[in-house]
Amino acid sequence: MQDAVVIGVDIGGTKSAVALGKTDGTILDRRSEPTRPDVHSPQETLERLAKFAQEMLKAAKLPKEGVRGVGVSCGGPLDTRTGTIYAPPNMPGWEAVPVRTFFEQALDLKVRVENDANATALAEWHFGAGKGVQSLVFLTMGTGIGGGLILDGRLYRGANDLAGEIGHQTILINGPQCGCGKRGCLEALASGPAIARLARESMMYGRHKRVLGLAGGKPADITAAHVVEAAKEGDPFAVQILKEAGTYMGIGIANVIQMLNPERIILGTIAVHAGDLILEPIRAAVTEYAWKRSTDVCEILPAALGDQAQDLAGIALWI
Amino acid sequence: MQDAVVIGVDIGGTKSAVALGKTDGTILDRRSEPTRPDVHSPQETLERLAKFAQEMLKAAKLPKEGVRGVGVSCGGPLDTRTGTIYAPPNMPGWEAVPVRTFFEQALDLKVRVENDANATALAEWHFGAGKGVQSLVFLTMGTGIGGGLILDGRLYRGANDLAGEIGHQTILINGPQCGCGKRGCLEALASGPAIARLARESMMYGRHKRVLGLAGGKPADITAAHVVEAAKEGDPFAVQILKEAGTYMGIGIANVIQMLNPERIILGTIAVHAGDLILEPIRAAVTEYAWKRSTDVCEILPAALGDQAQDLAGIALWI
Repeated sequence: MQDAVVIGVDIGGTKSAVALGKTDGTILDRRSEPTRPDVHSPQETLERLAKFAQEMLKAAKLPKEGVRGVGVSCGGPLDTRTGTIYAPPNMPGWEAVPVRTFFEQALDLKVRVENDANATALAEWHFGAGKGVQSLVFLTMGTGIGGGLILDGRLYRGANDLAGEIGHQTILINGPQCGCGKRGCLEALASGPAIARLARESMMYGRHKRVLGLAGGKPADITAAHVVEAAKEGDPFAVQILKEAGTYMGIGIANVIQMLNPERIILGTIAVHAGDLILEPIRAAVTEYAWKRSTDVCEILPAALGDQAQDLAGIALWI
Repeated sequence: MQDAVVIGVDIGGTKSAVALGKTDGTILDRRSEPTRPDVHSPQETLERLAKFAQEMLKAAKLPKEGVRGVGVSCGGPLDTRTGTIYAPPNMPGWEAVPVRTFFEQALDLKVRVENDANATALAEWHFGAGKGVQSLVFLTMGTGIGGGLILDGRLYRGANDLAGEIGHQTILINGPQCGCGKRGCLEALASGPAIARLARESMMYGRHKRVLGLAGGKPADITAAHVVEAAKEGDPFAVQILKEAGTYMGIGIANVIQMLNPERIILGTIAVHAGDLILEPIRAAVTEYAWKRSTDVCEILPAALGDQAQDLAGIALWI
């Protein structure tokens, strides 16, 4: 199919953006601003994003007839059939917001709404680390661990848009509390907050002075970024923490490989920032916890799109 | 599509069968005999099965033009693209056996070869407990725990026919040894041999006299069937063992639900025989270890095809 223009909308907990791009992955224009669910109503936020889109179309001298559609990427839970967002954890007040209907009316274009892990999986598949394969699992590795599944050449969403919740498989029965209410989920063991928690816990025994220093001496301010930074400097405790989190991550990925036998696993955010400091323990655990016959055909790679991922996520919905 | 005649071939570790059936699920004729990999070569076994098929076609006065194809269901690992079987654990000596080529030449018909969990998943989907849904996960629960995935209305096999190995996800890190070489796999905690092991272990402390009695007083002879029988009689230790195995099974199923968000989970063999004695602990664990939003749309049911499953498995490959 010929390259077409698409409007990609990314609604995030801290930042939202609109990108004008083409289905070949070219970004023509973009605008973003902080999301303030504490200040702006969902309606106000959506109106500002629609205005960005209109201004960009005008500046590009593009009539709406030249636009294939609007692709909205947002945190779940949401309903892709109706295009309604149901209170993502990071968007307080966004209860049952009819995002698709809003943009359809505001822009008079076709609209697709998809959860951000699925949309980013599509973007990495078309433009990034997933090019050329028929099956891949994309995993975010940040505040949460979400997943998007491309199986036999298409996105798999499940019965009600909840497939790919790989971060909420149980890795440690009776393990640490997860934000979802369960215990011992992968997300409670290998996400950014989990890495920060591991650092804080070890620190209680007087270690991790370097990580604490990076956090300005306040244990409560420690983040995964501090741990990654200290590990890159060679701090052995920080290296050990990434090894521990990476091992759990590898066990979770091994389970995914056993179940789905994909050609590629693509890991976002922390895996991109920490590189081999976390990829090596991940790969070692995958080798130990999954079958050779399955791992032999599966590459584990960091995501390739970097900052462009959010812009391309919405655009990928119309390829 | 109009109902067509199919030859279903089931090659099992203890028994093999050929069924002449229709794509509406009617079985017209069948023949089976013990599989003896210790006595017969793969070639001899396949020749006997081909002869059964020819005799049945002749008896039914069916020219081969009236047959849509041959569907072969067999334990993996196997390659569905080439139709080659690679030494299933229960078929010693079956190294790289070109099953598809054999039947193509012997019967002059089109042949499809599929692993038994996938083929049975298709059969339960078309004729059994999976009718009417778009996504389901079928799980064998016998000597091993294998899985077949129907996702968005079609069988998902993975990159090299290893998708659905749900029995080999890690449930207990450093748990009991699994036959696959790993430790703490679901199969090592909830399969038939795992249930027998749990019974034997508890028995060492003087309990489980009823189970031991059913096994003729020999601990080594205890099987899952003895445990199920004792549990049905009300023996509290046997009930407890099924509860323990069912809880592990439920955790494994919860992980599947988190990852795949299917409409239905269908459980074979032990779940069929033990019924609520194992389904209740399974459902309780699923409720605890998976999200309500996902479990609300997912039914957990015992397989419905019983002894017909093996015959229909091969036939389902040509629907």
